[in-house]
Amino acid sequence: MTLTFSINDRQRLQLAPLEIPTRLLLGPGPSNAHPAVLQAMNTPPIGHLDPAFLHLMDEIQSQLRYVWQTENPLTIAVSGTGTAAMEATIANVTEPGDVVLVGVSGYFGNRLVDMAGRYGADVRTITKPWGQVFSLEELRTALETHRPAILALVHAETSTGARQPLEGVGDLCREFGCLLLVDTVTSLGGVPIFLDQWGIDLAYSCSQKGLGCPPGASPFTMSPRAMEKLQQRRNKVANWYLDMSLLSKYWGNERTYHHTAPTNMYYALREALRLIAEEGLANGWGRHQKNVEYLWEGLEDLGLSLHVAREFRLPTLTTVCIPEGVDGKAIARQLLNEHNIEIGGGLGELAGKVWRVGLMGFNSRKESVDSLLEALRQVL
Amino acid sequence: MTLTFSINDRQRLQLAPLEIPTRLLLGPGPSNAHPAVLQAMNTPPIGHLDPAFLHLMDEIQSQLRYVWQTENPLTIAVSGTGTAAMEATIANVTEPGDVVLVGVSGYFGNRLVDMAGRYGADVRTITKPWGQVFSLEELRTALETHRPAILALVHAETSTGARQPLEGVGDLCREFGCLLLVDTVTSLGGVPIFLDQWGIDLAYSCSQKGLGCPPGASPFTMSPRAMEKLQQRRNKVANWYLDMSLLSKYWGNERTYHHTAPTNMYYALREALRLIAEEGLANGWGRHQKNVEYLWEGLEDLGLSLHVAREFRLPTLTTVCIPEGVDGKAIARQLLNEHNIEIGGGLGELAGKVWRVGLMGFNSRKESVDSLLEALRQVL
Repeated sequence: MTLTFSINDRQRLQLAPLEIPTRLLLGPGPSNAHPAVLQAMNTPPIGHLDPAFLHLMDEIQSQLRYVWQTENPLTIAVSGTGTAAMEATIANVTEPGDVVLVGVSGYFGNRLVDMAGRYGADVRTITKPWGQVFSLEELRTALETHRPAILALVHAETSTGARQPLEGVGDLCREFGCLLLVDTVTSLGGVPIFLDQWGIDLAYSCSQKGLGCPPGASPFTMSPRAMEKLQQRRNKVANWYLDMSLLSKYWGNERTYHHTAPTNMYYALREALRLIAEEGLANGWGRHQKNVEYLWEGLEDLGLSLHVAREFRLPTLTTVCIPEGVDGKAIARQLLNEHNIEIGGGLGELAGKVWRVGLMGFNSRKESVDSLLEALRQVL
Repeated sequence: MTLTFSINDRQRLQLAPLEIPTRLLLGPGPSNAHPAVLQAMNTPPIGHLDPAFLHLMDEIQSQLRYVWQTENPLTIAVSGTGTAAMEATIANVTEPGDVVLVGVSGYFGNRLVDMAGRYGADVRTITKPWGQVFSLEELRTALETHRPAILALVHAETSTGARQPLEGVGDLCREFGCLLLVDTVTSLGGVPIFLDQWGIDLAYSCSQKGLGCPPGASPFTMSPRAMEKLQQRRNKVANWYLDMSLLSKYWGNERTYHHTAPTNMYYALREALRLIAEEGLANGWGRHQKNVEYLWEGLEDLGLSLHVAREFRLPTLTTVCIPEGVDGKAIARQLLNEHNIEIGGGLGELAGKVWRVGLMGFNSRKESVDSLLEALRQVL
């Protein structure tokens, strides 16, 4: 073979095969994947239109409906990480000029604001200090004031560890004729959620927290009401990769090629969801609650205090106040380097003020808590 | 744990662990991943801000620069499949009203047209029958006529098997003051490409073809000239997930959190790129060329003819004319069901007229060709 140019070897690294330290991931995510999930992910890829693969997609759809407790026909995995699924909810139902009302009490509320703005929304916000939640009354007042097309709330704020109660919000949204869009990134699989009963129209999540799967394929669902808004759009969805009017034909009966699915991520997700169905949702939710209460007790025994009021604490993610005079970053670094345990730091309003400790999916185990408490005892 | 609602088990499937047939993937992609790549992918995930992970990201950047033959600082893997990387090129440099000129001689040219329109471009096209390519003179005339801000071409049309020559196009684009955007989805790793020498400003690819990695993390690069256009935008990039002004701070020195990277896909990609560097680009390109010529010979011995003129045929993907009176779909189904070999059908203008046979990455081996020819002998 004759080449017109000579090959430049400047960026050609001579590398050894991959070596990655084994960590116990107790931060805000990713969390460790279940070993059976890693094993399933390792299956050689097949074609994205292979009948065996299409069958697997159907299984994923059913199982996602189960973990979300929804009958939404359009319930799929987006071919990207949680942020892609988040953007998919906004992109499909937002048209330029739509009033989108976002409840902001943490980092991910702000991200929704930024995203909705990029799709031309007239974005309004209601805010709360990070770690607090909105009452039904506050939401009613905001809906009366702003009359949005979409109300967006974060069920489980990964940046604060607070759980936004959602019962009754769907009814309010129907009263005011708007769609309810909910971030369930840190709740799906670990926190009780009843999508249809709560009247949620759009939701997104990730694979790497409560589902115990590596990141890369992300749950997305939209209700028939939300589909109607999509179908009535005046213009194409301003995002090709995440356009549900196209994606629904790949996941639906038409099986029209859209993009090459991340096959191995879907293998992994299918196995993660299979394990959840095997354990049963009530058991899984109960396990997360039991283990997090054991963690809270242990942390308090160490003299540490927690940032969120007990009633609104997530079972998946706990924000721990960094004691006066302690260098939070140095402690986290020490946990990582000396104990191979990852915990997270605070973001935004909580930067430098809290650590974030996750007990999610496969990692929600007594042994995880014991390892962390023992390591904390040594480094504090 | 007391729950307000009872859990609906209607969608709770009782599934057995995953069983997927082993296929030889000789279609337009995905192709089989190298076993060492699957093994690397199976490494337990670590945090997306873990120093060990950030180091791995740096290695990916260097190795991608090597396979593309570029020194572009912003050379990364997008957290999605090839279509996401494709959209990233369009989204970052297209502003509403920009004239974007697309060379269309296949399915993916049309996709570029659709995407650019969604970002508000004034899209113009030049067309050729599917399987043919544009000459430098034709491109010059089109640039004179349309004076675009961006010229978009497909180096390797996955729908036709044609290779668009690119030498000299970058000089033309500089003469007319426009950016050159190139689809290298079916060329990267298998077809000679000299990004910087050819003056390409934006390119995207996928992991699952020439790189021999499962789909899910996709190469993206932009030149300093393209970065300048990004920095001079009047508005934010109309896509949060793919916004390079944010992503460059995660992949760059700032290490600012943007989204949770698909850790295991990056493990796999790093290993795939390591193997390419080990083999050496010239050897890899030579291997693809040698094996495809062996395939062409074998197909012609079977009495089959090829759709693309020899000079412009891709070494990675061959379009084979379906003989008169043969049911192309039935043959492909038979190859899959009886021989576990996947080949692709035609799209668009070539639907029902050709099969698409890929020899990409790990699958570009004499044994792949022998297996396919033997199976074809039996089913034809």
